[in-house]
Amino acid sequence: MRVAASKLESFCVTALRHIGLSDPDARTTADVLVTTDTWGVFTHGTKNLGGYIRRLRSGGMRVKAAPRIVKEGPAWALVDADSAIGMVGSTFAMRVALAKAKSAGIGYVGVRNSCHFGAAGYYASMAAAEGLIGIAMANDVPGMTVPGARGPVLGTNPLAYAVPTGTAHPILLDMATSAVAGGKVFAAAALGKPIPAGWIVDAQGRPSTDPKIYPRAASMLPMAGHKGYGIALLIETLSAMLTGASIAGHVLSWSFDDTSKATGHGAAFLVLDVNAFMPRDEFEGRVQQTIAEIRSAPKADGVERIYLPGEMEWERREMALREGIDLPEDVVQRLQPVAEEMGVELAQALA
Amino acid sequence: MRVAASKLESFCVTALRHIGLSDPDARTTADVLVTTDTWGVFTHGTKNLGGYIRRLRSGGMRVKAAPRIVKEGPAWALVDADSAIGMVGSTFAMRVALAKAKSAGIGYVGVRNSCHFGAAGYYASMAAAEGLIGIAMANDVPGMTVPGARGPVLGTNPLAYAVPTGTAHPILLDMATSAVAGGKVFAAAALGKPIPAGWIVDAQGRPSTDPKIYPRAASMLPMAGHKGYGIALLIETLSAMLTGASIAGHVLSWSFDDTSKATGHGAAFLVLDVNAFMPRDEFEGRVQQTIAEIRSAPKADGVERIYLPGEMEWERREMALREGIDLPEDVVQRLQPVAEEMGVELAQALA
Repeated sequence: MRVAASKLESFCVTALRHIGLSDPDARTTADVLVTTDTWGVFTHGTKNLGGYIRRLRSGGMRVKAAPRIVKEGPAWALVDADSAIGMVGSTFAMRVALAKAKSAGIGYVGVRNSCHFGAAGYYASMAAAEGLIGIAMANDVPGMTVPGARGPVLGTNPLAYAVPTGTAHPILLDMATSAVAGGKVFAAAALGKPIPAGWIVDAQGRPSTDPKIYPRAASMLPMAGHKGYGIALLIETLSAMLTGASIAGHVLSWSFDDTSKATGHGAAFLVLDVNAFMPRDEFEGRVQQTIAEIRSAPKADGVERIYLPGEMEWERREMALREGIDLPEDVVQRLQPVAEEMGVELAQALA
Repeated sequence: MRVAASKLESFCVTALRHIGLSDPDARTTADVLVTTDTWGVFTHGTKNLGGYIRRLRSGGMRVKAAPRIVKEGPAWALVDADSAIGMVGSTFAMRVALAKAKSAGIGYVGVRNSCHFGAAGYYASMAAAEGLIGIAMANDVPGMTVPGARGPVLGTNPLAYAVPTGTAHPILLDMATSAVAGGKVFAAAALGKPIPAGWIVDAQGRPSTDPKIYPRAASMLPMAGHKGYGIALLIETLSAMLTGASIAGHVLSWSFDDTSKATGHGAAFLVLDVNAFMPRDEFEGRVQQTIAEIRSAPKADGVERIYLPGEMEWERREMALREGIDLPEDVVQRLQPVAEEMGVELAQALA
């Protein structure tokens, strides 16, 4: 189904307002989810709206949450997100990190009582949009095994960063520390397709290509073995051990566990103000020259372009804003019950 | 050859003093290199002493360098390492980051005019030894290709972190963003052994198991494809684009390029003071509990232990300090000419 981004955003705002979210919080959340869809990252966008609403209804995420700074210094802060929907607590925290970085050169904000925050790249790109370097990360319920284990031990803890380039499109990486994001396994399961070997292992630790056994009887593999394990543990340290958030197996799944309980996620945001180090123009010139050099590197046989991290996502977004978002069938199916609960026809609401 | 760490360290100090390094700088460098050998990371330890000395003699690294802060705020600094040997500039910068973090909660230090700094984990562990969280990274001469390219585009830019645990042994990850560190390919070449597929591609971008073609006619593959590419580019951003250091293809190789020229490496160090967020005891308790939970996770068939990042290295170090370092033959061969230049017998000097 092809829908205008603005229509999809209005639909999200209406659905979130319907269950009691304030107008600013509904708009913030809708912007995160729809921006993610415009990037083509459908596993982390409006597909999850219904699940978030279920949790907001049951109290596991608080409709009237008020994220706040509980402790701070000139260049850091600890935020209690008050079990707000993840997008509300995370944008609040990233704004604090941005303000700190603008006044102190660097800003680190750790968050506790957060929830699943969707695409980490959204928060990183908030910094780049203002000419600063942004990094975002979060822990999650264990879905990934580690070398030597056979069951889930750590979350597929995401890491994202964005670097301003002087254009509308920052360098943007948004990755899970697992071989792939869990959402890609769910998407394959929903489409009834097998997955490549190397993505998951079954409950005995054997490789499997059946996405349906995840997460009930399977774990993701970390990217690059011990390296993905190590980076996931660094993210667990910065977003949870250091913030007072729930750690690893103590985090609840936002989609599978008791929807009346807070998930206890943690998150962390780091911002560096380029201007502290050199004039912004000079920095962006250095970035542009590096981009040009990477693009003009000798190409492998059959390759026409070398992409910068995020470049495909920005091009998809431009097309989505111009021609509409081509929502995959599994996303449409998940939005259907959200529309039904409001007593509206989805196709009509998005037309 | 089995040697006492203290003997190896004295040998390094003498050799570095011999070419004019000050006593403190010689001791600093020797401690980095020998600590690295005790971890069993022989690719980054005293094996490179001869190469560093060659560069110091020719002026590409400055014997009488004086690293200094050129710009700073309460929580960040920009350091010009004055083309010192990498270990001297990097320990200076990490000490600045530590001091900033202790007073401001967080400290970021970027470095320009650095050189190959050896094992990134050494600097990260400096922070953990004082109860703080440390992160270290650096760029390097391109030796790694990126998706779509067929030749080297970025360095195998290393990343390390250390988290204090309340014991003598922090969690410690030290990794290259390539599938493996370049030093492992050199080590295989020196031993005349083939390498596994997936480590390097040849000049046409085809997989190869011949370590001898690297780096002349081969490139490393990034770990986990686009993820390793993206993380290497983040490291390039923080250690070079933001610091004024040479970027990617503009960095000179410390071992292959004209030894009379500065390499222009960049580096970056980030420290977080746990005490700003919660009492150190509480933090270390959270870390200890997480470690216990990871260790007690159900194990894969045939596995007896699940290791924490760095645990193998700390156990190797304990054994090396107790029983001596078991120096591989290729390291001994590289130390031989260093001894000869000083007119001493290596075996005797290390006895």
